[in-house]
Amino acid sequence: MSTKLMRFTLSAENPVVASRARYSQPPPAPVFDMHYDLEMGVVLHGRMRRFLGDTVAERGPGEAWLCGMWETHGFDIVEAPCEAVVMVIWPPLLASQRFPQVPALSLLAPFTLPVGQRPGQAPALAAEILHLGQGIAETAAGTGAARAVRLQLQVVELLVRLWETLDGQGVASSAVGPDAFHRLTPALDRAFASRRAVGSDEAARLCRMSTRQFARVFHDLMGITFARFATCQRLHGAADALLNTDEPVKTVAAEWGFVDASHLHRLFLKHYGCSPATYRSRCRSQDPG
Amino acid sequence: MSTKLMRFTLSAENPVVASRARYSQPPPAPVFDMHYDLEMGVVLHGRMRRFLGDTVAERGPGEAWLCGMWETHGFDIVEAPCEAVVMVIWPPLLASQRFPQVPALSLLAPFTLPVGQRPGQAPALAAEILHLGQGIAETAAGTGAARAVRLQLQVVELLVRLWETLDGQGVASSAVGPDAFHRLTPALDRAFASRRAVGSDEAARLCRMSTRQFARVFHDLMGITFARFATCQRLHGAADALLNTDEPVKTVAAEWGFVDASHLHRLFLKHYGCSPATYRSRCRSQDPG
Repeated sequence: MSTKLMRFTLSAENPVVASRARYSQPPPAPVFDMHYDLEMGVVLHGRMRRFLGDTVAERGPGEAWLCGMWETHGFDIVEAPCEAVVMVIWPPLLASQRFPQVPALSLLAPFTLPVGQRPGQAPALAAEILHLGQGIAETAAGTGAARAVRLQLQVVELLVRLWETLDGQGVASSAVGPDAFHRLTPALDRAFASRRAVGSDEAARLCRMSTRQFARVFHDLMGITFARFATCQRLHGAADALLNTDEPVKTVAAEWGFVDASHLHRLFLKHYGCSPATYRSRCRSQDPG
Repeated sequence: MSTKLMRFTLSAENPVVASRARYSQPPPAPVFDMHYDLEMGVVLHGRMRRFLGDTVAERGPGEAWLCGMWETHGFDIVEAPCEAVVMVIWPPLLASQRFPQVPALSLLAPFTLPVGQRPGQAPALAAEILHLGQGIAETAAGTGAARAVRLQLQVVELLVRLWETLDGQGVASSAVGPDAFHRLTPALDRAFASRRAVGSDEAARLCRMSTRQFARVFHDLMGITFARFATCQRLHGAADALLNTDEPVKTVAAEWGFVDASHLHRLFLKHYGCSPATYRSRCRSQDPG
């Protein structure tokens, strides 16, 4: 990661990526992004400011941040040079992992709690978190036939360590079993495949649940409502189109099911912190690809 | 672990135990043991001699040993003080874990390969193995609501690191899928519940497989034949009876389905390296419990 946006294609075969990011100076302006995949980071050196939804928090060495699904996040550098290890995680990997030793353990919970309640700062554990972060950065840059498996194990270990600091918050919801993600898959697939707004009623029917039950399971597991999930998925599609085509903003808005260009504009300001046009020019100028 | 034998009850809720062992001097005589659960160890300090089946090998800092299912193993101290971290692992935990990133990865393979081909000594990795071993010892002695989960993740990580040194050996057998252990469960349950010799034909029938197919799947997954598995399970039952009752050896032999006391005697010499009587007196004198 530099100030350029990361684009990953995560899957069951490649559920975790991690890389060390070095910032010798602050970016010209904070860069915002949001994605389906979860993001976790640990500051290794220096200090950074993390923007998460409407909140701002500083993070120093041995402190972590966690971004939930489709959560707008960004950063600025407070103390350069700054180094961090940034991990991006495919949500189903965490949704399905349960440990009989500790039935309350939910690996998704650290990402779905309200931002203020998430783990990440625990002075007594900073040295240990830093050490785990450094190990992850080394594995990510290393070799070995099963490097990807070791990376996954280390990332899950860090997450479990962070979960422990929640002290009883972030317990696996009784409404969602280990198969909850699987049960929601028809709704997710429909949202991912659709360029128009998919309603919660339709999504619930696809999952063979009542609208009320669907809403509860979805929110408990994913940390956001289905409506927000579906909107963000379309915004993400529009953002991709802005980066990869020369189509006018108006056309992109229509193609991705937004009422008009000003509708897309408003949502872009809210989720990416800038207008569609600024997003297009800023990202293009920063991305050498 | 000291020279006293470890007895664990592992299960899905408690699939891994680990502890640091310190030896300020060699034991009076090598102590032998065998069990269903798998054992892995890493020398942290000093040197020890490991007996595995009919083989002997020295292990120093950052070197590991792996004991397969029902494999007679023992140790002696070559250079005191000697420290090691000893891990005992419930076999089904490893049998079912597969990683889509690395389909060839079999966590059981390091335990089922012929002793001479198992991982454990890799000079280039000694520092890393030592570090992983120290981390496991710390987690085992530490606290935290999900300590048991972190311990499991670290033990699996060590095992994956060792598997990588096999360089293409120890690949998951094509004959056994992730459900192989589950399919063998009826045979294992019958062997565990029985005090008489359970035949392979009967075991295959219970698993709804042909005798030939059962033999192949069993050996590929467990690393030993079913006949040996069933015999060792009865020997283990007899050993427990020797320790926990005052029954004569002859009675114990009859109760556990051996032809007579000399049959049990012969098998004890082979698997525990001593006679039933010696086993009884030696273990009792060493076990303060």
